[in-house]
Amino acid sequence: MEDGAALLTDLYQLTMAEAYLDEGMWDEAVFSLFVRRLPERRNFLLAAGLEDALDFLEHARFGAEELEWLASLGRFSNRLLGWLERFRFSGDVDAVPEGTPVFAQEPLLEVRAPIPEAQLVETFLINQVHLQTLAASKAARVVEAAAGRPVMEFGLRRIHGTDAGLKVARAAYLAGVDATSNVLAGKRYGIPVSGTMAHSYVQSHEDELAAFRAFTRVYPDATLLVDTYDTLRGVQHVIRLARERGEDFHVRALRLDSGDLLALSRAAREMLDEAGLTQVRLVASGGLDEDAVARLVARGAPVDAFGVGTAMGVSADAPSLDMAYKLVEYAGKARVKLSEGKVLLPGAKQVYRQEEDGVALADVLTRRGAVAPGRPLLRPVMRAGKRLPGASPALADVRAFAKQEVSRLPPGVRALTPARPPYPVRLGTELERARDTQVEAWSTAP
Amino acid sequence: MEDGAALLTDLYQLTMAEAYLDEGMWDEAVFSLFVRRLPERRNFLLAAGLEDALDFLEHARFGAEELEWLASLGRFSNRLLGWLERFRFSGDVDAVPEGTPVFAQEPLLEVRAPIPEAQLVETFLINQVHLQTLAASKAARVVEAAAGRPVMEFGLRRIHGTDAGLKVARAAYLAGVDATSNVLAGKRYGIPVSGTMAHSYVQSHEDELAAFRAFTRVYPDATLLVDTYDTLRGVQHVIRLARERGEDFHVRALRLDSGDLLALSRAAREMLDEAGLTQVRLVASGGLDEDAVARLVARGAPVDAFGVGTAMGVSADAPSLDMAYKLVEYAGKARVKLSEGKVLLPGAKQVYRQEEDGVALADVLTRRGAVAPGRPLLRPVMRAGKRLPGASPALADVRAFAKQEVSRLPPGVRALTPARPPYPVRLGTELERARDTQVEAWSTAP
Repeated sequence: MEDGAALLTDLYQLTMAEAYLDEGMWDEAVFSLFVRRLPERRNFLLAAGLEDALDFLEHARFGAEELEWLASLGRFSNRLLGWLERFRFSGDVDAVPEGTPVFAQEPLLEVRAPIPEAQLVETFLINQVHLQTLAASKAARVVEAAAGRPVMEFGLRRIHGTDAGLKVARAAYLAGVDATSNVLAGKRYGIPVSGTMAHSYVQSHEDELAAFRAFTRVYPDATLLVDTYDTLRGVQHVIRLARERGEDFHVRALRLDSGDLLALSRAAREMLDEAGLTQVRLVASGGLDEDAVARLVARGAPVDAFGVGTAMGVSADAPSLDMAYKLVEYAGKARVKLSEGKVLLPGAKQVYRQEEDGVALADVLTRRGAVAPGRPLLRPVMRAGKRLPGASPALADVRAFAKQEVSRLPPGVRALTPARPPYPVRLGTELERARDTQVEAWSTAP
Repeated sequence: MEDGAALLTDLYQLTMAEAYLDEGMWDEAVFSLFVRRLPERRNFLLAAGLEDALDFLEHARFGAEELEWLASLGRFSNRLLGWLERFRFSGDVDAVPEGTPVFAQEPLLEVRAPIPEAQLVETFLINQVHLQTLAASKAARVVEAAAGRPVMEFGLRRIHGTDAGLKVARAAYLAGVDATSNVLAGKRYGIPVSGTMAHSYVQSHEDELAAFRAFTRVYPDATLLVDTYDTLRGVQHVIRLARERGEDFHVRALRLDSGDLLALSRAAREMLDEAGLTQVRLVASGGLDEDAVARLVARGAPVDAFGVGTAMGVSADAPSLDMAYKLVEYAGKARVKLSEGKVLLPGAKQVYRQEEDGVALADVLTRRGAVAPGRPLLRPVMRAGKRLPGASPALADVRAFAKQEVSRLPPGVRALTPARPPYPVRLGTELERARDTQVEAWSTAP
């Protein structure tokens, strides 16, 4: 976690803490982090970001420099500054494991802690769980579209900033993407790194063939970028290189990065095959998203792998989720809010996933402690500020888990088009009643 | 700059460096960073990110840990690893100052350095300039829409990650936004921080009035959030608080965060005025973007300030720019690429902005060194790896500069709707000729 991360928060978290301290409000609060509505083009979300959330909760500290700066604002009491200085998150967290498909209103995580603590961590928790869930959910669509063909994540340059560059690479890998171009993500998370060459490399040589000759002297099994001047002339240059090199020709693949990728991949495949280069594979890239990938796959484009960048990396068609972190219980009492009729389901919760023959049929959202048929999704991951054993599986295991969980969704929910009907999420009877009671109570209040 | 940032790059930057070293290619390259096309709903972009770009170029280093990990991949020679170990960016940078409005094809910055160096820094430079220009350009629209009313940036929780959280707050401030909720951005950049209270604070109290009483004991001049249960009932609670407190009532503003903000702000204003609370201001927030702000302003909503979060923070309607960093010259020779007819204008460049009576009429894009009427926008900011004096003005000065430069754009270009015709960017004759010559040369090449 970077220095000063505890200050990566909204100012009102600190002013509210000041007020809670002033009032002596130390009772336990439960906050629930969930998405109110899914974006139009998402049939499910893939939960991610828990690892960074837990890391933050374990390690967030206010250092001397931060406290001094806060004091300089003249808005905070010594009582608050002293509390921040001693701040250690002491609460409990229950969460769905990373890689779990989730739906609207289902908690991704719930925090139980004295209200000043539970409130203070809101901004960072949403920031990380939002970004990573957003990215994993988009990447899962690209993986679905690729229908088994490898996908490489190439987005770092246009993903929003350095932190997202890393987190999106991780989330994409978690969702089934096979590799990233992001070197630091490779180092930090153990994700396979992958790369080819840029147009500038080709441009800096006298001609394209000279560039291919030079690059393959260093990397004989390179993937060569063939569209700098003209894609099919580029393919001819590769074929000429193969003739020159004979048995020393080991080029693994060509990358097509522009133009009509369906027509070009077919023509390139034909040219390569005719030249006896059936082992040379084709990688498509250049402005791809899940729809473009799905179209290429559906039309039988002879593309062996996809490089997907910006559209996946910024979740271009849905660059945010309506994710919130809401107070659902305080001092043992369930809480609601009614802003613009947006009813908040009160109380700590559990989600039960009901499956038949390995296929998910429906979820039931209940009050925590209520029992419903199915498999409970939220698990204890932190108690009294300490991460529980098993709360942080290896990324490879998370990836395998995500693959299995997604494979259990009904095909219509995994599909790129809107599921009709959407995956059913039912309210448990107790929760429904609790909500109705609360709504009634508040709406008749003076 | 965070640890390991030098590895925040695409793998191919390293493999290309390996090849350049193998070939002994040390000649100077010029790379130009520009946006190929503007998004449909952007009449101009506001340049930002140069400060972090220069910081990276001055400080990027490969440490022992990074080198060891790279060596462990087994893909890199000792020659490359040794070069990385000694890596110091030694090149020159010319750039438009942060806060300059720019258009398609105009360089935001140009790097001149031995090709392995100039290539290696591509990913990080785009990552930062892309994000910050994207954010500043979006924020400029919100500021324009607010027509002089203060705007506060509230996006941290749904902005993509921690780095973007900071950089977007800075870019928004640069573009004319007045404050941020992001505490660390306040500390790091000296941006005014601002905040109110959350629904959870209200929910955690017995009733809304109790919450207002408690909060204003700590912060008498607070902005109170009134929509937790019912906005106008919330306003009544504030009026009741005013009666209770008498001369000790100092509430500064109410925040309306949901519902029909036009109708609610009118009703709230009327209620406050009737109660003699004409000094209490109204802040609107909740899913706002520049269109919603403009509508409220156009209809005369009595809103004194806007809190804008997610839509501005992720640039929701255009979450990426078609930004590229392209080789335009190598070893003294202009370079092009022709992928899918996307002609690359060759050579280092300059942009001249032609103005009359303080209003920009047109830009002329020329080869560097060519002279055209108007004010040149690109300036030297780094020579031989060292930042030049004046290259890093204070953020307050950048903000004032941006305000002045935007005010010089024609009203149709500053407007939220597409400018008809778009702002004219002409090619200098020499550049036009150079491009045609290159295109001709390459398209007749074997």
